[in-house]
Amino acid sequence: MKLLSYIEPGTHGKKASYGALDGDRLVDLATHEAPTLRMALAAEGVEGLRQRLEARSQDAGIPLAGVQLLPPIPQPEKILCIGLNYYLHAQEVNMAVPSNPSVFVRYPNSFVGQGAAVLRPPESEQFDYEAEMAVVIGRGGRRIPEEQAMQHVAGYSCMAENSVRDWQRHSAQATPGKNFFHSGAIGPWLVTPEEVGDVSRLEIIGRLNQEVVQRDTLDQLIFSIPRLIAYLSTFTKLVPGDVIATGTPAGVGLSRKPQRWLRPGDVFEVEITGLGVLRNPVADDNISQEH
Amino acid sequence: MKLLSYIEPGTHGKKASYGALDGDRLVDLATHEAPTLRMALAAEGVEGLRQRLEARSQDAGIPLAGVQLLPPIPQPEKILCIGLNYYLHAQEVNMAVPSNPSVFVRYPNSFVGQGAAVLRPPESEQFDYEAEMAVVIGRGGRRIPEEQAMQHVAGYSCMAENSVRDWQRHSAQATPGKNFFHSGAIGPWLVTPEEVGDVSRLEIIGRLNQEVVQRDTLDQLIFSIPRLIAYLSTFTKLVPGDVIATGTPAGVGLSRKPQRWLRPGDVFEVEITGLGVLRNPVADDNISQEH
Repeated sequence: MKLLSYIEPGTHGKKASYGALDGDRLVDLATHEAPTLRMALAAEGVEGLRQRLEARSQDAGIPLAGVQLLPPIPQPEKILCIGLNYYLHAQEVNMAVPSNPSVFVRYPNSFVGQGAAVLRPPESEQFDYEAEMAVVIGRGGRRIPEEQAMQHVAGYSCMAENSVRDWQRHSAQATPGKNFFHSGAIGPWLVTPEEVGDVSRLEIIGRLNQEVVQRDTLDQLIFSIPRLIAYLSTFTKLVPGDVIATGTPAGVGLSRKPQRWLRPGDVFEVEITGLGVLRNPVADDNISQEH
Repeated sequence: MKLLSYIEPGTHGKKASYGALDGDRLVDLATHEAPTLRMALAAEGVEGLRQRLEARSQDAGIPLAGVQLLPPIPQPEKILCIGLNYYLHAQEVNMAVPSNPSVFVRYPNSFVGQGAAVLRPPESEQFDYEAEMAVVIGRGGRRIPEEQAMQHVAGYSCMAENSVRDWQRHSAQATPGKNFFHSGAIGPWLVTPEEVGDVSRLEIIGRLNQEVVQRDTLDQLIFSIPRLIAYLSTFTKLVPGDVIATGTPAGVGLSRKPQRWLRPGDVFEVEITGLGVLRNPVADDNISQEH
């Protein structure tokens, strides 16, 4: 099942909702009690959504082309990102293989959905791409044992975890360079585990203007998804809709010779086997000040 | 004006609300439209709250002793914490004076309010205290100029930004050691700027079991409050209720010889001139697993 959040331009203004994909037709799944996908995951879980999709499968649906996609979970409580989680990426940035996950936080407003422009801020030219796989939590928990962790996963999505490198390196803490407004993207949708199968066999590809710049397989994660869920849930309570970004493979612009930064007109794509292609053009952030 | 959030044990279960302090009497300020202090700051600002307090000043009020205090803003969108922001603290942990603020994130559920136990997790004995001043944003904004920044402040509060040191040092990113459930505290209330006056003359004291272990003045901040607001709002949009933790002075348990970690039975206090005393006992976190 492919779940997504979207905005439909309607006669009475825009309406944000969520649904499931059936071919190129979108079946809306929102209810009064669960107006967001995050709330639906919390209230009914993936199975409840599957039943609703079945019950509504005769609905006319909405053509996918007519809506604006949002990140699958537009407002998660937490977006926990893992740095240095592919062996070759740790090597290319001259870092040792870590003995514990490196965890930083991004806020939801640092992301856009499928097709929207990712923004280069006026403060920096070092705007870099990072193809990643995002894991979305379906069932929350604390101190989740590694062997039960996969039962807590609602699904997977592509993420462009783009970074502003000089601001990421203003101090040891990555927060500033990872949180510029609309600098990253998540989407196009959330694919549930039964459709994904064995995660370790998936391939992840980052493409800059059609050229493959990152390529690896998910079996190259230093910390596996169950290990990450166990680790993160030790110090914080995971809740439905929480997003875990699993790290980026080698090939980022920072490590290329010469370095290659994103600029307006570029298009960056993240493709992961079975999860679709997340595609975003790059534009300049022209908002100077907002009070 | 002293603003606070609280839970009142009522006949029909507990009710979370907010209000202002008038001596040791609490005047509830909640409305149907603004059921939380964060929403009230967004909708009406500090001035709107002042007018409502005046209008309700003849209410019977609630004895402060009868309620449970929460962090003044129980669910802020963002809690942005600054590391290494006092000269002597940077020195005691052998770090250079930073040229940019070190920014990490804490989630709301890593904090409790006045009087509640802060929890030492079973995973570590390196549970350390950190007295800090917290700044709460009243008016949001992006790329706020330093010279206008103080107009965006709703008020100030004491914070115990307690840290689990070994988990803080699992990698370069501090996130894990800064986000254990109920490890820190904020309170007792939020004091609005006109009552605080010149922030730089305030004294901050950390007291462990009545002994002064941290003491400094706010003019010793490496990055001033206006500078922090300008810096943070460059990469993220600040919104009403956002919390900025301004860093801890020298004297943390990590730097003492021998090192001194918090243990059950300890009481840690944070006192800042005019902001009151935040006092929390230490207890063990006995929750092992939660699904």
